[in-house]
Amino acid sequence: MKIDLQNVVNEIYQKHLDLKIGKPASYIPELSNVNPDLFAISIVDVNGQIFSAGDSTATFTLQSTSKPIVYGLALAERGEEFVHSRIGVEPTGEAFNSIIELEEKSHRPFNPMINSGAIATTSLITGSDFSSKLEKILNWFELFVGHKVEINESVYLSEKKTAHRNRAIAHLMKHFDVIDSDIEETLNLYFKQCSILVNCVDLGFIAATYANQGVQPKTKKNVLDRAKVIKSLSLMFTCGMYDTAGEWAFQVGLPAKSGVSGALFAVVPGKFGIAVYSPKIDEHGHSYRGQAVLKDLAKRLNLNVFSHMSEEGRQL
Amino acid sequence: MKIDLQNVVNEIYQKHLDLKIGKPASYIPELSNVNPDLFAISIVDVNGQIFSAGDSTATFTLQSTSKPIVYGLALAERGEEFVHSRIGVEPTGEAFNSIIELEEKSHRPFNPMINSGAIATTSLITGSDFSSKLEKILNWFELFVGHKVEINESVYLSEKKTAHRNRAIAHLMKHFDVIDSDIEETLNLYFKQCSILVNCVDLGFIAATYANQGVQPKTKKNVLDRAKVIKSLSLMFTCGMYDTAGEWAFQVGLPAKSGVSGALFAVVPGKFGIAVYSPKIDEHGHSYRGQAVLKDLAKRLNLNVFSHMSEEGRQL
Amino acid sequence: MKIDLQNVVNEIYQKHLDLKIGKPASYIPELSNVNPDLFAISIVDVNGQIFSAGDSTATFTLQSTSKPIVYGLALAERGEEFVHSRIGVEPTGEAFNSIIELEEKSHRPFNPMINSGAIATTSLITGSDFSSKLEKILNWFELFVGHKVEINESVYLSEKKTAHRNRAIAHLMKHFDVIDSDIEETLNLYFKQCSILVNCVDLGFIAATYANQGVQPKTKKNVLDRAKVIKSLSLMFTCGMYDTAGEWAFQVGLPAKSGVSGALFAVVPGKFGIAVYSPKIDEHGHSYRGQAVLKDLAKRLNLNVFSHMSEEGRQL
Amino acid sequence: MKIDLQNVVNEIYQKHLDLKIGKPASYIPELSNVNPDLFAISIVDVNGQIFSAGDSTATFTLQSTSKPIVYGLALAERGEEFVHSRIGVEPTGEAFNSIIELEEKSHRPFNPMINSGAIATTSLITGSDFSSKLEKILNWFELFVGHKVEINESVYLSEKKTAHRNRAIAHLMKHFDVIDSDIEETLNLYFKQCSILVNCVDLGFIAATYANQGVQPKTKKNVLDRAKVIKSLSLMFTCGMYDTAGEWAFQVGLPAKSGVSGALFAVVPGKFGIAVYSPKIDEHGHSYRGQAVLKDLAKRLNLNVFSHMSEEGRQL
Repeated sequence: MKIDLQNVVNEIYQKHLDLKIGKPASYIPELSNVNPDLFAISIVDVNGQIFSAGDSTATFTLQSTSKPIVYGLALAERGEEFVHSRIGVEPTGEAFNSIIELEEKSHRPFNPMINSGAIATTSLITGSDFSSKLEKILNWFELFVGHKVEINESVYLSEKKTAHRNRAIAHLMKHFDVIDSDIEETLNLYFKQCSILVNCVDLGFIAATYANQGVQPKTKKNVLDRAKVIKSLSLMFTCGMYDTAGEWAFQVGLPAKSGVSGALFAVVPGKFGIAVYSPKIDEHGHSYRGQAVLKDLAKRLNLNVFSHMSEEGRQL
Repeated sequence: MKIDLQNVVNEIYQKHLDLKIGKPASYIPELSNVNPDLFAISIVDVNGQIFSAGDSTATFTLQSTSKPIVYGLALAERGEEFVHSRIGVEPTGEAFNSIIELEEKSHRPFNPMINSGAIATTSLITGSDFSSKLEKILNWFELFVGHKVEINESVYLSEKKTAHRNRAIAHLMKHFDVIDSDIEETLNLYFKQCSILVNCVDLGFIAATYANQGVQPKTKKNVLDRAKVIKSLSLMFTCGMYDTAGEWAFQVGLPAKSGVSGALFAVVPGKFGIAVYSPKIDEHGHSYRGQAVLKDLAKRLNLNVFSHMSEEGRQL
Repeated sequence: MKIDLQNVVNEIYQKHLDLKIGKPASYIPELSNVNPDLFAISIVDVNGQIFSAGDSTATFTLQSTSKPIVYGLALAERGEEFVHSRIGVEPTGEAFNSIIELEEKSHRPFNPMINSGAIATTSLITGSDFSSKLEKILNWFELFVGHKVEINESVYLSEKKTAHRNRAIAHLMKHFDVIDSDIEETLNLYFKQCSILVNCVDLGFIAATYANQGVQPKTKKNVLDRAKVIKSLSLMFTCGMYDTAGEWAFQVGLPAKSGVSGALFAVVPGKFGIAVYSPKIDEHGHSYRGQAVLKDLAKRLNLNVFSHMSEEGRQL
Repeated sequence: MKIDLQNVVNEIYQKHLDLKIGKPASYIPELSNVNPDLFAISIVDVNGQIFSAGDSTATFTLQSTSKPIVYGLALAERGEEFVHSRIGVEPTGEAFNSIIELEEKSHRPFNPMINSGAIATTSLITGSDFSSKLEKILNWFELFVGHKVEINESVYLSEKKTAHRNRAIAHLMKHFDVIDSDIEETLNLYFKQCSILVNCVDLGFIAATYANQGVQPKTKKNVLDRAKVIKSLSLMFTCGMYDTAGEWAFQVGLPAKSGVSGALFAVVPGKFGIAVYSPKIDEHGHSYRGQAVLKDLAKRLNLNVFSHMSEEGRQL
């Protein structure tokens, strides 16, 4: 990899600086108060080297980018078999907040990347009480980020107050015995995990930890074992971008996850993690700039997993 | 790759020789007349070396394993943009023969791996008349297989006679202006392509051509350009196994395609193609033995695309 | 009934003469060639007395208003039990041309008023060949109308040529063994029955025959036995207006059936039949003027079945 | 009406005394504690005369039979136009507890007889606080029954504790702005109204009040104005029996409403109300005996609304 990554990041940042379409998410009122022009790109490689451009120290809430990370914690705590019996790994062709996609036979949520599956995932985290569960989740994120994280309480309260659809989804899963836990506690944990504050470099380190087979590039701690990293990447590849996951695989070809705050990260296994932050989102809940940047990077650096593999394979 | 592949193939063949569940497809009457105990595994590497076990010379019809190949022909003939405007690349969570999954807005079929999308794909093949279109399709398959192919006329006629659901799907797409062609001609072409006869080694060469970036390993002809190979692999990864595609990605992690004849192939980019034939299928239309063999091979040889990439990446 | 019906008809005709919204059906090309301003109202009482206004001699094709009549013939020929085993009587909340509403368990069409159920109904008519079946259907309609009827061949051919959705529905029912007959023959019969030409007075006599317990008011022939009249009225009440049937029951409260040609008839049991013809239709396929006229008549003459019954009951 | 109704009631009671299939509802735990063999029939005519057989003093909770009565209160309080803007009147073809049937465009519940529509209806009842709203609802029921009513607190608490699906439905309607009220308060009112205790004669008086154009036959009070009675009957005819409403109209032909407690009432406008109580229910939530008794009564006494009207009409 002789490419000057910092130079590539700068160029692509400049190219997309003027993108004007889209606006911040409004369904969580507090999210709409953000500066819509914020824009950052951060690539973090498996050695922990950082290549950033733009507002890389501006903080934002993780929202749905938190989902694969908590899924990893659930796998670590409850084992793949048990987690899989409660939450599938199948893409749906439906939007992230669909309530109808509970499988007919088992009533399992289709996958942990959509809200139903993510809430069910959070319900599996163990602990003696709310505080101990929350602390466990925060500690887990800190392992990926490499330092302490905080929660944006006003986003949390805003989401808690308005999340009637998520509440509906949770009650329906309780009805179908998909979740055993107390609904309000589970939702509060879920809203808290969505409200964790990071900046674009932090998100780059999360992605880089996956790229580095579960070892955080800076702290060198083995945060997630290799087998679970592989499962997580597979899941992000087929389900991470909801009802545009197939299109994403076709155009970009990298495991990725987006959040309605405008966060988006993608993983280039063995090489680096890529994070973009720009709060203007499309109707699927994906950052406009985030998608454009990733498409450009994937094309320019030939990052598509199948493209990459074919080349590596031939060199052997 | 120092592994003795022939030995691995022999062992896994023996391990699954006694698998008893499932029975051949019955919805195409002629398909149910096959010997249900047939079983073959063929790995063909990018240099054209063959590692086979079992009934590797027994012939069978391609059925849905023909879909990605004809999609490649459509891409080559009509260009990605046009093909994409007619047929999406999104997984559905629905069965292969679903009629309800025509996108609400555009009425495009969700992807070319389900029947609706595959029929629409075949409708895009150009030619002055039925014969010239059929000849073009047969020639296309011959490039992948490396020799002449024939059609099983009794399977073709059996399918043509009983395919009321596929006829319904075609008429609905005509209604929505997804297909412009004559419906009977398109269906006949589609039934013909599904009835092409190959053996397990042939299917292995098809898979190996994808693994070898579009160059047929034996003839060394560049059958499909590299960019279209990447698109095809992405598509097979997210949509090739229909409503178990997510599960397949999670458990096996390789681009693959199955057919109700009991055919199944998977691609290990840069390395080799894997083909399995065993006519006993499950309720999703996938060969029981085919799936079991692939799961074992993927685990034993560490073939999951993300697993592989992570390792390769670290060696750089 | 001391009301001067002719006067009421005249007044309501004048009131709605200027209604401007809507346009003729365009999905059958030939239907769009009609004069969109045509407008007729005809009430025919159980004694055969006629109260008409407007273009009551202008002819139009029956389209879906033919459905309950052929359903009566199927009941007469095959018996209620058999017909019921093939076609339900349940309203759906879906549009008239929905293809997804084949019941999950039995795959029966929900009811004979939507296209799927109507095509299945026509498939049940017996006869040695196409001509004898067609003749039987025409004779059946002639019993209701009281004279010979003809078919508009250009509408028939136009519908036959463009009915891809109906063809899709028919093939899907063939797939599910809901229909045993030859699909093209059944569809041709169905398109012919839809293309029968009547004028507004004729349609009034059809409605009046139902109002008169199955006895045609002019010929005094007992066309349909009383028990089947009751079943037909019940069916038209819950399903005749498709996905606005509930709204219609709530606002008008009379058994009715509409057709995309702009035909609409309603039945006031024991009293009279009401027919309206005006080709401008809404998105549900109902005549705008037809609906407005019926709402006014129902309100003015207190025709709602429950209103009427309550009053009659009290007089006993 | 020269028929000896008491004799008919006795005969039909005896005929169905031995019916063995079905069991009491179990989804509300407290409901399953009832004596499953209880069985009562009560006909109350428009003059207040009572014809009963069986356990006609055994009390049971109204459950869904409360829905049309509270809908009447909402109409009286808020006006038809406003109520209609929030809750449709369209049958759905779906089960009583379906969560997916919120209209795509307006997100209104399809009708007030299914749970979503009934909860939305209860949310419209006005009052300064919970107690005043509850008192208003109880007073409203007392007008129909003719005496004070009580609530079965253990059924109420049992339903309140386990109603995860109803809670999901309420939150989803809150999300779509269909309901403005506090969800817990509305659900508590709804569970209370479902837990009102009556016996079979009481339920007969409710039905008779509808039969008598809104005038309670014993107290002679005008409880519901005539226009709203007509609307209520229309609604019960098309939607009262959920996804078997069409079948019910076809086989029985009377406005009716069932509840999972085993209560069922039907209205013969101008003549009498019919109530049946027998707790063994089928998969649609309807009492087995209740349905069988009504089918027999309708056939024996020729009660089908269209049958009746045809005859009455001819006598004029």
